Amino acid sequence: MTRKVCVVVTARPSYSRIKTALLALRARDDVELQLVVAASAMLDKYGLAVSQIQADGFEPSAEVFTLIEGENPTTMAKSTGLGLIELASVFDNLRPDVVVSIADRFETIATAIAAAYMNIAVAHVQGGEITGSIDEKVRHSVTKLSDLHLVSTRGAADNVVRMGEEPNSVHVTGCPSIDLAAEVAADPALDFEPLERYGGVGASLDLDEGYLVVMQHPVTSEHELARTHVLETLHAVNEFDLPVLLFWPNPDAGSDGTSNGIRTFRELEQPKKMHFFKNMAPHDFLRLLVNSRGIVGNSSVGIRECSYLGVPAVNIGSRQDKRERGRNVVDVDYDRGQIAAAIGRHLEHGPYASDPIYGDGRAGERIADVLATAELRTVKRLTY
Amino acid sequence: MTRKVCVVVTARPSYSRIKTALLALRARDDVELQLVVAASAMLDKYGLAVSQIQADGFEPSAEVFTLIEGENPTTMAKSTGLGLIELASVFDNLRPDVVVSIADRFETIATAIAAAYMNIAVAHVQGGEITGSIDEKVRHSVTKLSDLHLVSTRGAADNVVRMGEEPNSVHVTGCPSIDLAAEVAADPALDFEPLERYGGVGASLDLDEGYLVVMQHPVTSEHELARTHVLETLHAVNEFDLPVLLFWPNPDAGSDGTSNGIRTFRELEQPKKMHFFKNMAPHDFLRLLVNSRGIVGNSSVGIRECSYLGVPAVNIGSRQDKRERGRNVVDVDYDRGQIAAAIGRHLEHGPYASDPIYGDGRAGERIADVLATAELRTVKRLTY
Amino acid sequence: MTRKVCVVVTARPSYSRIKTALLALRARDDVELQLVVAASAMLDKYGLAVSQIQADGFEPSAEVFTLIEGENPTTMAKSTGLGLIELASVFDNLRPDVVVSIADRFETIATAIAAAYMNIAVAHVQGGEITGSIDEKVRHSVTKLSDLHLVSTRGAADNVVRMGEEPNSVHVTGCPSIDLAAEVAADPALDFEPLERYGGVGASLDLDEGYLVVMQHPVTSEHELARTHVLETLHAVNEFDLPVLLFWPNPDAGSDGTSNGIRTFRELEQPKKMHFFKNMAPHDFLRLLVNSRGIVGNSSVGIRECSYLGVPAVNIGSRQDKRERGRNVVDVDYDRGQIAAAIGRHLEHGPYASDPIYGDGRAGERIADVLATAELRTVKRLTY
Amino acid sequence: MTRKVCVVVTARPSYSRIKTALLALRARDDVELQLVVAASAMLDKYGLAVSQIQADGFEPSAEVFTLIEGENPTTMAKSTGLGLIELASVFDNLRPDVVVSIADRFETIATAIAAAYMNIAVAHVQGGEITGSIDEKVRHSVTKLSDLHLVSTRGAADNVVRMGEEPNSVHVTGCPSIDLAAEVAADPALDFEPLERYGGVGASLDLDEGYLVVMQHPVTSEHELARTHVLETLHAVNEFDLPVLLFWPNPDAGSDGTSNGIRTFRELEQPKKMHFFKNMAPHDFLRLLVNSRGIVGNSSVGIRECSYLGVPAVNIGSRQDKRERGRNVVDVDYDRGQIAAAIGRHLEHGPYASDPIYGDGRAGERIADVLATAELRTVKRLTY
Repeated sequence: MTRKVCVVVTARPSYSRIKTALLALRARDDVELQLVVAASAMLDKYGLAVSQIQADGFEPSAEVFTLIEGENPTTMAKSTGLGLIELASVFDNLRPDVVVSIADRFETIATAIAAAYMNIAVAHVQGGEITGSIDEKVRHSVTKLSDLHLVSTRGAADNVVRMGEEPNSVHVTGCPSIDLAAEVAADPALDFEPLERYGGVGASLDLDEGYLVVMQHPVTSEHELARTHVLETLHAVNEFDLPVLLFWPNPDAGSDGTSNGIRTFRELEQPKKMHFFKNMAPHDFLRLLVNSRGIVGNSSVGIRECSYLGVPAVNIGSRQDKRERGRNVVDVDYDRGQIAAAIGRHLEHGPYASDPIYGDGRAGERIADVLATAELRTVKRLTY
Repeated sequence: MTRKVCVVVTARPSYSRIKTALLALRARDDVELQLVVAASAMLDKYGLAVSQIQADGFEPSAEVFTLIEGENPTTMAKSTGLGLIELASVFDNLRPDVVVSIADRFETIATAIAAAYMNIAVAHVQGGEITGSIDEKVRHSVTKLSDLHLVSTRGAADNVVRMGEEPNSVHVTGCPSIDLAAEVAADPALDFEPLERYGGVGASLDLDEGYLVVMQHPVTSEHELARTHVLETLHAVNEFDLPVLLFWPNPDAGSDGTSNGIRTFRELEQPKKMHFFKNMAPHDFLRLLVNSRGIVGNSSVGIRECSYLGVPAVNIGSRQDKRERGRNVVDVDYDRGQIAAAIGRHLEHGPYASDPIYGDGRAGERIADVLATAELRTVKRLTY
Repeated sequence: MTRKVCVVVTARPSYSRIKTALLALRARDDVELQLVVAASAMLDKYGLAVSQIQADGFEPSAEVFTLIEGENPTTMAKSTGLGLIELASVFDNLRPDVVVSIADRFETIATAIAAAYMNIAVAHVQGGEITGSIDEKVRHSVTKLSDLHLVSTRGAADNVVRMGEEPNSVHVTGCPSIDLAAEVAADPALDFEPLERYGGVGASLDLDEGYLVVMQHPVTSEHELARTHVLETLHAVNEFDLPVLLFWPNPDAGSDGTSNGIRTFRELEQPKKMHFFKNMAPHDFLRLLVNSRGIVGNSSVGIRECSYLGVPAVNIGSRQDKRERGRNVVDVDYDRGQIAAAIGRHLEHGPYASDPIYGDGRAGERIADVLATAELRTVKRLTY
Repeated sequence: MTRKVCVVVTARPSYSRIKTALLALRARDDVELQLVVAASAMLDKYGLAVSQIQADGFEPSAEVFTLIEGENPTTMAKSTGLGLIELASVFDNLRPDVVVSIADRFETIATAIAAAYMNIAVAHVQGGEITGSIDEKVRHSVTKLSDLHLVSTRGAADNVVRMGEEPNSVHVTGCPSIDLAAEVAADPALDFEPLERYGGVGASLDLDEGYLVVMQHPVTSEHELARTHVLETLHAVNEFDLPVLLFWPNPDAGSDGTSNGIRTFRELEQPKKMHFFKNMAPHDFLRLLVNSRGIVGNSSVGIRECSYLGVPAVNIGSRQDKRERGRNVVDVDYDRGQIAAAIGRHLEHGPYASDPIYGDGRAGERIADVLATAELRTVKRLTY
């Protein structure tokens, strides 16, 4: 009998982090893939991941709107509650054998709770890592609700076991986002015009002279500072005579602050070499990165994909604290001076050697294999 | 400035496990106590804890109905989602400094998520213990969402720290339910007629000859077996020529099975010495226990309160697996023979010496003190 | 192309009122029937209509738990809200051409709102009647959300048009519940032993001597009086030396009061000739009625089905005020004297002639025909 | 004893339509005003009405986020369901004597249902009018849930009575939005610089030469056409050599289409004399209107306030069909030719005489008086 594997995608970045596993699951005879799309993955404003998913040939088993407007801590909690209600109905209908909860976004705990309470095995992808902000609580809380752990690094596996999970439930698969990075690294030419394909607003740019990429998200536990923080970054990158490609932030509490900071900067400083994008298909984004002079901000992509790609990264603030990192990363504070200095050092050094810390490019395959074949249990106890 | 401490009570047993802490909080000048009553604590069917709470002189700051009918795994998940939505609105209004999530019932994770996502410090009472069923996932998941850990035993404290929590955020306070047990132990006379005060159905009983107490809950992960399990217990206790006082189960998935088993037994066997209660005020219940010949079933009260009271306990099945226990407990399987044998042994032995493993009777005071004075943080990271 | 007709069943009595239409819809080539089961129709406690539905060979397209525990006015409102959320997701998935909202139970307005807001045509069955309690507001409010009106009587049709609906959107079909009554009237022998087939509690009865049926629901707007009201009824029927078959009430706010009244009466009066049923399959119930000496209470069955069957009915209180009625009905107040007098008169008179006021037995067919072939619109305006 | 009057404001325009009644209620000794703010009234994106409310000196009794992201028919339904759940909890806490549901926005039915189901009297403001789109269904449905009808016009009163409401429950008060218009008409000078105070985007304008105001909302039942419709309007107003002040649409399903049309026009046509505003305080907006050469679009303001103010209005399409109107209105189709012709005629004619059809400027006072003193009932029946 085929096993029903249900994957819940709640955001554009989560899709990138699971896509190669989905492709591998779809290719297997022993698996029936059920794909559920929810939360910001349904919304135009956040990149309409559901369209990318369909364009990649997947047919969602269910699509649900679960995000409550407000983009503040209260609505984060309420959206999670609504997601939990809806996902329980969805699982009741689909009756999966195992449900996959991806990473650590606030709403992904709804996936884990619904499945755990309904006596369905829960598999968690990307547990055991250490970062700042509310993600940290979400990630480890999901670990404690999960029966199967598909982690990206050896260090993450150690952490999951230390938290009391059975060692044989933990599998080091690498991160599927590195699979995409590996594809791009194998054929790195920038084969499209970013401004032409993705529009966006801001200056016309000549990317041949090299460019920086900026991606900075608000930190939930400090969301009122989001505006100030992004302004430091913008002033720093503006000091260099290089084109800057900036991406709008994710839908977390505080993204209004970040967006507001970006808008203010645009109007007051009228930067001559900045262009602003809403989002980009994962492959295109990685291609943009591998051809860049570096990435600046606090996105995990600077630490994860860029370690494999060897792209210089300036990592700002507490959001990625304690996450394992390769040599391509320089950590700085929310301070335009520190940020500019780090950029300067990177520009001098140029690209770094590839580091397989987050995966070797075959994570999707391994994840699919564990999901299809691992023994499924729903009862566990602390191993101490 | 006084600190706003918000305690969310979602069930009758949870109230017993926090009552002395509530009294101690109310007595303090440096604390404003906010009491929120939700889920089964609002419902007549489950003992209407809200009435007991008001009878004890507390004025709830908010009362919300959050339980979705069905008593199955799907509605457990959905009720948790609805609780999350409602509690977010409640906290948005009350703006507490710290929120207390009690123990490990399925819906208590909603309390922890709402507070954590809203950047409010979360204090968890009774974390770190090890048991069977879905409670295990809930309890440790709540630990990972919490900033302050108020645990009952030294062993629980060790477990919480091993899971990666900062040692100085963990406080061994004992369990407030032992505080009630200590009050009763100091003055143990059975000063009321249980059948007269609480009604119930079944035979009239002469309690002077000694009696057994039975309390058996369905085990979530095995809920279809609930009916069979309780029948084994009922047949076992029926073999002794002793009055039996039986309590109906908690509102978990599967309680319909247990209730159905009890009803079937009543009709088929027409037991001559059994009486069936819906619920009892905590003090009365403890007084009933301390005067009994023993407790049979899988309630944690057999392991926790009865260790302090020295009441013989027959603990059946997996529900309390791995929970620390005193000498008063004999563990058996869902098997009428084993159950009867254990009862026989206990009847021969009589009462046990008091064991302070779960507390010395001053837990409420200690919990109030920590909640009032501990430094409150909302950001944490794994300590590994 | 076949038309997708989606019927939402939210309660056991609603199923009886639509069953023959469902059978007729299923038999058509030009219709794809989508059956959604929700609210109390999912719950054991209220007769588990979903099992009857499946036993009748229907395969629900979706099943959702939407009832919030409490059985009070607050939870009625909240259950409706939860139903609305869930049904929107269900319709989003099923994409029906027309949605059928049945009668006037509180939760049925969620069906109408979800469909209307989603630009799906709404067909309302049993609009235009006049009764007491909150049903009155619900029924007419649903009429104003609906595009197609399938009413039971000529008087109801007149009322719907007076409210401003276009005359050609109103169809007098009769009530499908009369279709069942007609089947039973054609072959009326009591071919089963009610106590044997349905269990229940109370006295053993010899039905050959004739018997009364009692069915009394709480009236929402007076729910605190529910206990007193049912006690008047019970005292009245107890005066006759006839077996009494009593049915527990529907899940409305106040049913706890009614249930409590019934329980109190049983314990205090220990009636020798009463038996208490939870529910009964529609055919069996009608067969029971047609062989009875009369029905007492405030159920609409006394007015609707019993007008066709000619069964004497004592209608108590305000619940059925202003509903069109046949000669079989005597109206009385909540007063044991009046109730007993009316029963006495009916016993003397015996059965009444059949009255086709609520239908001729072919309503299901007519409803299916309209749903399959009527022009579907979703925009309308008052016709004044 | 003072009567508790609870008003639920769910949107910026709803606030304008009730503000003078709120002021009059606050001024009374016999009323305790409870103000609940929900849905889009909580959101920055839709003008953050809650801030205006607080700036006007009102202290909301409760604020709830109830809007689910998506701006499509499915999320309209779900947002209404969430609002219903939240408002039930709010009313359970506030225990009002009468609840006021304003006008006909989709979410206002949640206010009416929650109150009606909870046996609280429902007062409906602005019932009985006739318009197009989903508002029509909502408005009359709310009428059937309401116990007290505070209507704007004599014609509306007639309609409500025809729908079966008791004549003595219907009060012609006029519309409070006309109260604001009357204040402005008494002192009409444009005493602020719109572009300076409200920012917005687009051309700098010299308003001294006269200007047109454009306000066009998507029509729910035709939401896919929203983009095309607004483009016709923009092309028409662009033909005149007059400054145009355009306002972004309300948050209804389809507003993305309208917004997209506006954005497209801006980019392709680069209009030299258009400026785009997000929103404006009600007084400022009325002042802007009274000094304009006319209003173009489908906002009810063109028909209601502008009838009193005598401002020429070009009303486009079906949205205001059948609404009573004064001589200031010319109706046209979604056609740039017709729209331009109507503007031309109005420019020639100039301002119209004031018409009191929607009120004489004292509606707020009258509404407050009825709410404070009318007998409150919660049970009603069709009057036929």
